[in-house]
Amino acid sequence: MRILGIDPGLQTTGYGAIDVLPPQGGRPGRFKLVEAGVIRTDPESPLSLRLESLYSGARDVLIDCQPEVVIIEELYSTYRHPRTAILMGHARGTVFLAAGQSQIPVISYAATEMKRAIAGSGRASKGQIQRTVQQRLNLRSLPSPADVADALALALCHGIRVRTGREGELAEIERPTTSL
Amino acid sequence: MRILGIDPGLQTTGYGAIDVLPPQGGRPGRFKLVEAGVIRTDPESPLSLRLESLYSGARDVLIDCQPEVVIIEELYSTYRHPRTAILMGHARGTVFLAAGQSQIPVISYAATEMKRAIAGSGRASKGQIQRTVQQRLNLRSLPSPADVADALALALCHGIRVRTGREGELAEIERPTTSL
Repeated sequence: MRILGIDPGLQTTGYGAIDVLPPQGGRPGRFKLVEAGVIRTDPESPLSLRLESLYSGARDVLIDCQPEVVIIEELYSTYRHPRTAILMGHARGTVFLAAGQSQIPVISYAATEMKRAIAGSGRASKGQIQRTVQQRLNLRSLPSPADVADALALALCHGIRVRTGREGELAEIERPTTSL
Repeated sequence: MRILGIDPGLQTTGYGAIDVLPPQGGRPGRFKLVEAGVIRTDPESPLSLRLESLYSGARDVLIDCQPEVVIIEELYSTYRHPRTAILMGHARGTVFLAAGQSQIPVISYAATEMKRAIAGSGRASKGQIQRTVQQRLNLRSLPSPADVADALALALCHGIRVRTGREGELAEIERPTTSL
């Protein structure tokens, strides 16, 4: 199963695709990195063109990676910088749109849920998340920038849920009105 | 000159296109309603499909109306309901994207600026805005719902600026980093 995690931002959008390999000799299937990277937009460009470049970047990633599912972080209930958060919303909407047009379902996990699933604690630090992602995917170095680490962590969170038969909440599908 | 105002929302997006007619006999050009309406999305649908339906609705409106410019309200600096505002951001991003893909420039005005331009006060009420829009466009009844009135008010704001040679801030073009 191929899972694509995306961490959307107007400036930098991180993405990371992983495969969940089949179980072997009674051991649960391992995770394998397929591809990861960032889509950046030019801060000097008008907003509409930045979103267009994010949109076409996201489309390219969806076509290249051919994921079965896209994982994007749930919205928080409060934000320290509302204006920045709303601009993130512009980017997040663009990614949801690109996934919808490719008919790929989107599932959301809360940040705490993702942290708990992959690092054992809903309060795990950025550093802990990066190290856990590195271990689980057997990477030579820490995944960076943070946007890529977060995208891979989201993909892993779903991978762990799939493997253990607890796919979390199919936010998009089962709770449409709260699929935020 | 044809101007399309858009008031984006995940549930309901209002739009309204007006023409600025040429001046006649020393009088400034009048405004004429071309078309107005709403794009609604199904709250029962997954977010990605809602945005897809908003996107294709916005594309249709852009194709039908063939505006020279799209006017969308500036973001505020604070919001009472950040989560709702971020979802509005998803819709707003989708509209910016559709306009960008159609190569139509987007200009933003702050709500207070729009109110001042069309009703004489930055603190004009919803009702005052509706009545002013009705008068200026010579409509038989008050424009409704509020999303349509707001979209038309934004288009009128730009029309007034164009007519008086004060086109406001080409937020998108001249201040790219603050074109929010």
